[in-house]
Amino acid sequence: MESDYGLPRELSHMQHARSLYKPQLPPCLEGTTVRVEFGDATTAVDVSGASAISQSFPHTYGQPLAHFLRATSNVPDVQVITEHPAIRVGLVFCGRQSPGGHNVVWGLHEALKIHNSKSTLLGFLGGSEGLFAQKTLEITDDVLATYRNQGGYDLLGRTKDQIRTQEQVNAALAASKALKLDGLVIVGGVTSNTDAAHLAETFSQAKCSTKVVGVPVTLNGDLKNQFVEANVGFDTVCKVDSQLISNLCTDALSAEKYYYFVRLMGQKASHLALECTLQSHPNMVILGEEVVASKLTIFDITKQICDAVQARAEQEKYHGVILLPEGLIESIPEVNALLQEIHRFLRQGSSKDKIPSQLSPWASALFQFLPPFIREELLLYLASDDSAQLSQIETEKLLAVLVEAEMSKRLKEGTYKGKKFTAICHFLGYQARGSLPSKFDCDYAYVLGHICYHILAAGLNGYMATVTNLKDSLNKWRCGAAPITAMMAVKEYGRASGSMTIGKPVVHPATVDLRGKVYEVLKQNATKFLMEDMYRNPGPLQFDGPGADSRTVSLHIQDLDYMGRIKELNAYLDKVRSIVKPGCSQDILKAALSAMSSVADVLSVMSSPSNGTI
Amino acid sequence: MESDYGLPRELSHMQHARSLYKPQLPPCLEGTTVRVEFGDATTAVDVSGASAISQSFPHTYGQPLAHFLRATSNVPDVQVITEHPAIRVGLVFCGRQSPGGHNVVWGLHEALKIHNSKSTLLGFLGGSEGLFAQKTLEITDDVLATYRNQGGYDLLGRTKDQIRTQEQVNAALAASKALKLDGLVIVGGVTSNTDAAHLAETFSQAKCSTKVVGVPVTLNGDLKNQFVEANVGFDTVCKVDSQLISNLCTDALSAEKYYYFVRLMGQKASHLALECTLQSHPNMVILGEEVVASKLTIFDITKQICDAVQARAEQEKYHGVILLPEGLIESIPEVNALLQEIHRFLRQGSSKDKIPSQLSPWASALFQFLPPFIREELLLYLASDDSAQLSQIETEKLLAVLVEAEMSKRLKEGTYKGKKFTAICHFLGYQARGSLPSKFDCDYAYVLGHICYHILAAGLNGYMATVTNLKDSLNKWRCGAAPITAMMAVKEYGRASGSMTIGKPVVHPATVDLRGKVYEVLKQNATKFLMEDMYRNPGPLQFDGPGADSRTVSLHIQDLDYMGRIKELNAYLDKVRSIVKPGCSQDILKAALSAMSSVADVLSVMSSPSNGTI
Repeated sequence: MESDYGLPRELSHMQHARSLYKPQLPPCLEGTTVRVEFGDATTAVDVSGASAISQSFPHTYGQPLAHFLRATSNVPDVQVITEHPAIRVGLVFCGRQSPGGHNVVWGLHEALKIHNSKSTLLGFLGGSEGLFAQKTLEITDDVLATYRNQGGYDLLGRTKDQIRTQEQVNAALAASKALKLDGLVIVGGVTSNTDAAHLAETFSQAKCSTKVVGVPVTLNGDLKNQFVEANVGFDTVCKVDSQLISNLCTDALSAEKYYYFVRLMGQKASHLALECTLQSHPNMVILGEEVVASKLTIFDITKQICDAVQARAEQEKYHGVILLPEGLIESIPEVNALLQEIHRFLRQGSSKDKIPSQLSPWASALFQFLPPFIREELLLYLASDDSAQLSQIETEKLLAVLVEAEMSKRLKEGTYKGKKFTAICHFLGYQARGSLPSKFDCDYAYVLGHICYHILAAGLNGYMATVTNLKDSLNKWRCGAAPITAMMAVKEYGRASGSMTIGKPVVHPATVDLRGKVYEVLKQNATKFLMEDMYRNPGPLQFDGPGADSRTVSLHIQDLDYMGRIKELNAYLDKVRSIVKPGCSQDILKAALSAMSSVADVLSVMSSPSNGTI
Repeated sequence: MESDYGLPRELSHMQHARSLYKPQLPPCLEGTTVRVEFGDATTAVDVSGASAISQSFPHTYGQPLAHFLRATSNVPDVQVITEHPAIRVGLVFCGRQSPGGHNVVWGLHEALKIHNSKSTLLGFLGGSEGLFAQKTLEITDDVLATYRNQGGYDLLGRTKDQIRTQEQVNAALAASKALKLDGLVIVGGVTSNTDAAHLAETFSQAKCSTKVVGVPVTLNGDLKNQFVEANVGFDTVCKVDSQLISNLCTDALSAEKYYYFVRLMGQKASHLALECTLQSHPNMVILGEEVVASKLTIFDITKQICDAVQARAEQEKYHGVILLPEGLIESIPEVNALLQEIHRFLRQGSSKDKIPSQLSPWASALFQFLPPFIREELLLYLASDDSAQLSQIETEKLLAVLVEAEMSKRLKEGTYKGKKFTAICHFLGYQARGSLPSKFDCDYAYVLGHICYHILAAGLNGYMATVTNLKDSLNKWRCGAAPITAMMAVKEYGRASGSMTIGKPVVHPATVDLRGKVYEVLKQNATKFLMEDMYRNPGPLQFDGPGADSRTVSLHIQDLDYMGRIKELNAYLDKVRSIVKPGCSQDILKAALSAMSSVADVLSVMSSPSNGTI
């Protein structure tokens, strides 16, 4: 089978046209010289976990941020790297395929060859399994020919994809040594990048010279933090899903007789559901984060939907579209508790048939209340990251069944007087994941691939490639690298995070910030969306003409450019220093002292461990 | 609720850009003069049913074909219509929404206003129900502003949409009289166009001056015959579905662990499944027509898929994509017989709970063998055209369950030695139906709208608007009209056609021609598609740049331009006549006589009722 990987293949007219597209490079990556500026040493976002993290990562914690600068930049302490010996780099796809992944390979290959035509890029075949087994494909222009700007991970494939057990880590180390790799690039989401950080630390400890680099590629869009604005694949999947959701809205409005319940991929966090809502304006979305914050039970959610259906019926509206993230099921407190019990038994090796009789009385009562198809799905074996198989649990069907039962009850009791409620269920995920990547994802992934080379050229280990200012045009993108440990936190308890991550330093998926600007936009419009059918069709993904250069709505709204703002702060500090030079007046010194002492007080209180926001 | 129809609404950037697109007109529709040429009187495609059809349609059967000609055309018997009094026309959307429907309204409105600014177009609100209740919206440029080139039927809405019972026909007649309509345009598929033909006959009989015109708009693509090459909406839906199928193929190939079972909308015929296969090259497709022709049982089909899975496993391939048309379930002989029994009981008013105990022994045995979810779905109430609710029967899930069981059995018995078979099911339909229409569907629908006016200006009743030579560029499209009765046939028996159509003249859905060129292409490639993963992604629907002007694969392969070829034949006949003029040699006369008498013999044998191809 491996012999099929990387074979040239017949492309459709459109695939061929896309394969000819060549993304540009931001000025800071142009040319054959790497110019890197180091920032301050990083801390971890999780103040209370910082010491635990530094203990787990003695060699890789606390490294500085890195920025790559353009040739014309006028910064004093820039390290300029002009010598580029030939190097050998390995790349592995980890976890769910995400549109754009192939362009990381392309970008890295290009960067390697530009700096030294004798450098080599090896792709591992079949994901982490290929890494352990040292199965590689040398990336060449010929190999890439039919994979540039194409979707999927089929150039190299992927498998279960974890690099976590001692055995797996040792196999990765052995492979890196045997293949004489100078760098190992891991393409994936939160779990894979956590694995990358651990590998980097282990390699460093073992005096292995292979540097490990992570790349944020995940359609979930949940690898977000101060350093990472967006993930490769999210833009495409949101656009494909939003098109389909909008089509369903139009369909609902034309026939006026169905409610569409649409579940979206995206794992625990609801970023995808939120973005699609902002792109296509369906009537309702229920975010997992809202459910957690308000501790809504499954009956609360059912009632909320039924009340919405009833309010619409009073305006003679018998159709609608309701979005649900796949992580919703885990966010419902009592279902989550039930899942925890089931998972404990599964981990102990109990068989599916026996678990129902082993449950605690209340969990058993809830379990028996649920329709048979959901019971079956809740008992499924755990996913490779030790959490529930969210894609297989039909939450949309569960809610449709419950809402239908409640509406029938209301109809009988006479509290609802409208037409019969009819729901049709959809799950959108697999059909978007393999899409041709959007121009944005093509560009972003290609640039990240180039950055990987820059990171390796600068000799950095345990870093993730980053681009900030993504909402601006490509020539204003800022390229850099951040230590993965700086994105970590330690959770001592948590909802459904998979037991393996509790108490350990990991990169956690970012959930939707209910105090953030993106969610605020949803809140402001929720009532209008619900009642007024403000359906909006962003149209199919375009590669030419209007819409081809659009970005996600979230990207435009979010408070981004964390690193830019740190620079801005530094500029203020420098300015104070330049004003309060020896020789300045007593009054100015007094004012500065008083102001700065109060600033320092406020900030130290805010950042003490007990105030940690994680 | 009706007050919401036709309201201006907020459009996305892409929707707005599309709303500014203006299709061109073929030369034959340009200007302010209508030039119509009448062909020979038509017969019915169904030779054996011709007399029954002529009896049912005494006023509208046997009318000639009509062609609309360009101003510069040089044809002798053209009727030139230069006077265009103001007329009033009603338009109604019937049946499932299909992308492009709105452009029929736009085209007709434009044509009316070009020829007389005082003409009026009334849209009926809420489909046929609106027609019966005389609820209308006057179409204006303002009303159309945000609906040009947009998907769905939400400008006017639609309901159950049949115009068939005496009461319904009378209501339509009353509405046409009360509103003083000169024309009534019915936009829909086979059922709705059959209804249109009956209305035309009834109106004519009742000396009502309203002329009835049908427009072929159905995503099923099954309103195909000598006069109709394609249906509005089919192109868009095939493109949207093919994109999603291709994404699933890429996804399957990236993860290498799933089989995707994909059911496609499209009613009884498998045109959509066939076209999507040619666009995206999935591993397998099972057409309803093949199952009928080979009388495959559900066990045969299961075995066929299992053998394919096994053959692929032997090449280390554990993934794949299998397409199934929604009509497949009715094509399986024993399931069809079961459905017929169930439907008989449903029509007699039996309740769902009682039917299982009323079934004949063998039907009962099959019913009990099927998984519970399918039993439930087979018992669903009949659709408005008196056939099964195909969209609600999860054939893909049924086959996935059966294949999984069989593969587990083979694994246990040791006849299959590969990895566990895992299937994930999809139904594609609703999410494509509401799409922004492709450029082709925008153009085609707009042109058909113009033709509707030409038909009314020529005073024709019971005709369908037609465009031929569609595979060529728009300026070579040939516009005309054909009597709907010429597309009818009488079936004395048939598979699952809904009892109402048996023994009556109706326009039947065209099924995939297993002797046709399109199917031949599939056959030639089936083995390669199955084994070699020749997945091909046509990409998302494009409005600009490469791919924006593409058409369906079928349109390019089919033997089309029936009317063009009739003209060609007439030219040959004329040529013989011109050669064999009085004065020609005896030898030439003798040769001509002998040749023509044998041609006449052959054709009369071929077209005798016992050789009818219906």
